[in-house]
Amino acid sequence: MHTYRSHTCADLTKDNVGETVRLSGWVHRVRDHGGILFIDLRDHYGVTQVLCDPDSPVFKDVEKVRSEWCIRIDGNVKARDPELVNAKIPTGEVEVFVRDMEVLGAAEELPLMVFGEQEYPEETRLRYRYLDLRREKLQRNMTLRSDVVASMRRRMWDKKFREYQTPIITASSPEGARDFLVPSRLHPGKFYALPQAPQQFKQLIMVSGYDKYFQIAPCFRDEDPRADRSPTDFYQLDMEMSFVTQQDVFDTISPVIAGVFEEFGGGKKVDAAADWPQISYRDAALWYGSDKPDLRNPIKMQVVSEHFAGSGFAIFAKLLEQEGTEIRAIPAPTGGSRKFCDRMNAFAQKEGLPGMGYIFWRDGADGMEAAGPLAKNIGPERTEAIRQQLGLGVGDAAFFLGGKPASFQRVAGKARDVIGEELGLTDKDRFAFAWIVDFPIYEKDEETGKIDFEHNPFSMPQGGMDALNGDPLKVMGYQYDLACNGYELVSGAIRNHKPEIMYKAFEIAGYGADEVNKRFGGMVNAFKYGAPPHGGCAAGIDRIVMLLAEEQNIREVIMFPMNQRAEDLMMAAPSEPTAEQLMELNLRVIPQE
Amino acid sequence: MHTYRSHTCADLTKDNVGETVRLSGWVHRVRDHGGILFIDLRDHYGVTQVLCDPDSPVFKDVEKVRSEWCIRIDGNVKARDPELVNAKIPTGEVEVFVRDMEVLGAAEELPLMVFGEQEYPEETRLRYRYLDLRREKLQRNMTLRSDVVASMRRRMWDKKFREYQTPIITASSPEGARDFLVPSRLHPGKFYALPQAPQQFKQLIMVSGYDKYFQIAPCFRDEDPRADRSPTDFYQLDMEMSFVTQQDVFDTISPVIAGVFEEFGGGKKVDAAADWPQISYRDAALWYGSDKPDLRNPIKMQVVSEHFAGSGFAIFAKLLEQEGTEIRAIPAPTGGSRKFCDRMNAFAQKEGLPGMGYIFWRDGADGMEAAGPLAKNIGPERTEAIRQQLGLGVGDAAFFLGGKPASFQRVAGKARDVIGEELGLTDKDRFAFAWIVDFPIYEKDEETGKIDFEHNPFSMPQGGMDALNGDPLKVMGYQYDLACNGYELVSGAIRNHKPEIMYKAFEIAGYGADEVNKRFGGMVNAFKYGAPPHGGCAAGIDRIVMLLAEEQNIREVIMFPMNQRAEDLMMAAPSEPTAEQLMELNLRVIPQE
Repeated sequence: MHTYRSHTCADLTKDNVGETVRLSGWVHRVRDHGGILFIDLRDHYGVTQVLCDPDSPVFKDVEKVRSEWCIRIDGNVKARDPELVNAKIPTGEVEVFVRDMEVLGAAEELPLMVFGEQEYPEETRLRYRYLDLRREKLQRNMTLRSDVVASMRRRMWDKKFREYQTPIITASSPEGARDFLVPSRLHPGKFYALPQAPQQFKQLIMVSGYDKYFQIAPCFRDEDPRADRSPTDFYQLDMEMSFVTQQDVFDTISPVIAGVFEEFGGGKKVDAAADWPQISYRDAALWYGSDKPDLRNPIKMQVVSEHFAGSGFAIFAKLLEQEGTEIRAIPAPTGGSRKFCDRMNAFAQKEGLPGMGYIFWRDGADGMEAAGPLAKNIGPERTEAIRQQLGLGVGDAAFFLGGKPASFQRVAGKARDVIGEELGLTDKDRFAFAWIVDFPIYEKDEETGKIDFEHNPFSMPQGGMDALNGDPLKVMGYQYDLACNGYELVSGAIRNHKPEIMYKAFEIAGYGADEVNKRFGGMVNAFKYGAPPHGGCAAGIDRIVMLLAEEQNIREVIMFPMNQRAEDLMMAAPSEPTAEQLMELNLRVIPQE
Repeated sequence: MHTYRSHTCADLTKDNVGETVRLSGWVHRVRDHGGILFIDLRDHYGVTQVLCDPDSPVFKDVEKVRSEWCIRIDGNVKARDPELVNAKIPTGEVEVFVRDMEVLGAAEELPLMVFGEQEYPEETRLRYRYLDLRREKLQRNMTLRSDVVASMRRRMWDKKFREYQTPIITASSPEGARDFLVPSRLHPGKFYALPQAPQQFKQLIMVSGYDKYFQIAPCFRDEDPRADRSPTDFYQLDMEMSFVTQQDVFDTISPVIAGVFEEFGGGKKVDAAADWPQISYRDAALWYGSDKPDLRNPIKMQVVSEHFAGSGFAIFAKLLEQEGTEIRAIPAPTGGSRKFCDRMNAFAQKEGLPGMGYIFWRDGADGMEAAGPLAKNIGPERTEAIRQQLGLGVGDAAFFLGGKPASFQRVAGKARDVIGEELGLTDKDRFAFAWIVDFPIYEKDEETGKIDFEHNPFSMPQGGMDALNGDPLKVMGYQYDLACNGYELVSGAIRNHKPEIMYKAFEIAGYGADEVNKRFGGMVNAFKYGAPPHGGCAAGIDRIVMLLAEEQNIREVIMFPMNQRAEDLMMAAPSEPTAEQLMELNLRVIPQE
């Protein structure tokens, strides 16, 4: 028989009754029932009930084992009495009578129980991560993550993409966040950087003629802590293709993402990739108040300025006299009660707005009537016009926000989310996707009036050089995000592969050719030697797994995460270097005051 | 038609004759034959001949294109004249007559030609890596590497292993080499380290109950430059399993490695995994003078001390009077000529030994006779006994080395290699594997007499605690390497998972419990909470790809390698940080004198 096991703890069924077997695993739970010891023996695959009565030659030894001891047992498989069968587990029809036992690894008193659902402080969980990771939920999350990544790879291979590894110890990649630096020993005073993303390298791979690239790529950013991101690194499904249009990228990656959600979404409805809408950045802002809208929520905002211009509602009427202002409505089907409307108004106030005006429609003495202060101020005709535009009826409501869109758009988006949630309009059993397209290349700093890149400087402007010779604020890029249930899952672009257009694009944002050559020289130089048109995207793996696992905290889907102070308490990182290490690196730590 | 291509440059065959097609790619070569321009248009997939005569509406434009311009052409597919068919390429039956052309990316004058086999200095190749990578050999090597890694993953998945990612920004992992450090911004004066290997993490994954782990893992070591290794990082197929013996690890990984070599070995013979010998470290040293023997070479060295003890060859006879000395023979079938023997003797002298005595056998007047100075000195009986022991005959030779094995073993191994090569005994069309087992846990420093770990401190000693209570220099570990054609491809061990045995093992090497807790606390603490027996190994991916691609330099199998000074000239890494970056990291660079 094998030294450690003839079967895993998930293998035994009635077919094995009568056999002598060997199992290894952890003592999940041990109970003493009238002098008989019942042990739930657990391994990665399942749980088997083993029991030991005083007739067993090793009863005295088995009496000593405690939770989370790792043991090996030999025993005889017996059928359970019918009334004791546990239909919930595959091994529930049998139990194993222990005849021999070996302690493979004893355990000290546990700082954290594996059995049960008890909550522990995060610091305890991370310090004893090897115990935390034994718990059922984390076993499930970690295997899910592994399976999701494997599925992504298979799907990319099936599409004839090859995975190429790009350098991890390299130069700064200008993604706009803070780099992690790595001092060079051989070049005193010089530093490498860990890549914020393989952006430049994947574009170089295209220039090198490899046509289709992907990578499950670690990305490193020295970020300040936040619950939904790691303070050090994250993983992307990064891909790039040559000789493609934006639509080609969508047609390639959409089925991969949809496939992963279908495979691991636990039966929730997944919008078919062919049906994912393409929504312009501008429309997304207008309709959903967000560039990553949650389309499970059917609410679509609308501009209703005309109904308020010159109306009796002086606040909006006056607002509309200023340039760049708008009134927008959030329709709220089934939200037609004063109580609900007042609660939403209070929500808007909590978010820093003066409030949200509203109208709701109810059955009145003479049929449908519109209620709420706004309706009175603007009168029945305008109210009815609004109702018709929004397609609402009795029992529905609408909320109104006005001003320059930038001033209220974010809150409008949040209000839309809350309204959808509270009214039960948001379909929780669905993954709803949309491509957000036509991002502006530039934005204007309201205070300084300076024009800078809105997103990243590597996207091809729609219209190419001609477009750049016009009003920069009107230039849109071949740049896109994929939104799912209110999160940005994917981001990408068709790249600007023409050096002359790139220099021009940077010039508009105030960067001279010297600066471009200095910061992005590796890539721009490459573009001077026969660069193909190319584009691609990157999908956030941690985020995708969080969505699939229904977790809110990124640390639930990473095996060995840092805590929020970017420390690994288990491994004691970061730690003080030795004097010798610092000397080799030619560095001195500046003493703290 | 698609914006850029209706077909790749490998797609068109006679079946497409008469079609109008669109191709995109690079101008591999352009020739002017009597006023007609012939262009080999190349993409990742292949080459298609396109041609343009003065009747084409774009002749004037096509005249301007140069090597490595990236272009898009539209044209008509025509069959080549039978005598012009190129059977070597899939598109060799057709050519495309250009009717339209667009320059997608022009190229400046090339620092490096993609077409042809011209050699360029490494600095040029790395600075313009995107051109170098377009060359046929590198395209082949990079896709090979990608396919090898993909195949490894598939094979591990098939064996029910899951890939789990371990941290890259973490604590020092004590593999004995120099760490790359990463200064922490949030914790002034403290540093992270990049992992030399995921050793501790993979063991923690076993303690966490995940049973089977693998990872294509980047490993980081701040090494001094050498041709066959990267100065910064390398990749391993890293794996670990719980509840296994050494043989289980062999049975798991051997078919994976064998399978990869069969799949990508270009038809060379691959020893069947079930036939791979297990050779003890001691025997490997004796038989092959190496712990990574090349078994394509059939030569096996033997101890022949008894034939020289008290013999007329005073040098060896006297040597043997000292303790710990031996005489070893390198049999050299078919090496029986004075010329060859003298050359090998000269080789040994060049390697720093006094020389290698030899005997060779030839046809003499009275049948077989033994020649060479040694034969005369020890006389015919001893000579014949040696011949019989070594199984040699007419036309063969044997070389002899004497002393303490440590003093000549390395040269003996090299001599064996050279003899095998020169005599054509080494089968070049074969991948020959052997597991090297039974490594000693400890070694004694000859000068200080201090006992230290021979290899790595995490292996389980054979015999466990009992063995450690005896002579430490006799303790062998469950530790193993896989040798292939003279290289170490895989290294691994059954781990020491018992804290008490680990503390004892370290104590023997002079490390107290405090030191162990400080250096390996993360792992040793985990072992106190129910650790399973576990073991695994890591296979060097760069090395495997080098063997399969028949490359000697690691930079031929890495997409963006550093140069030997650990610089990336293309991306300008390492570089000087900004003052702001240093300030944020709380560091000061010590000025160089």
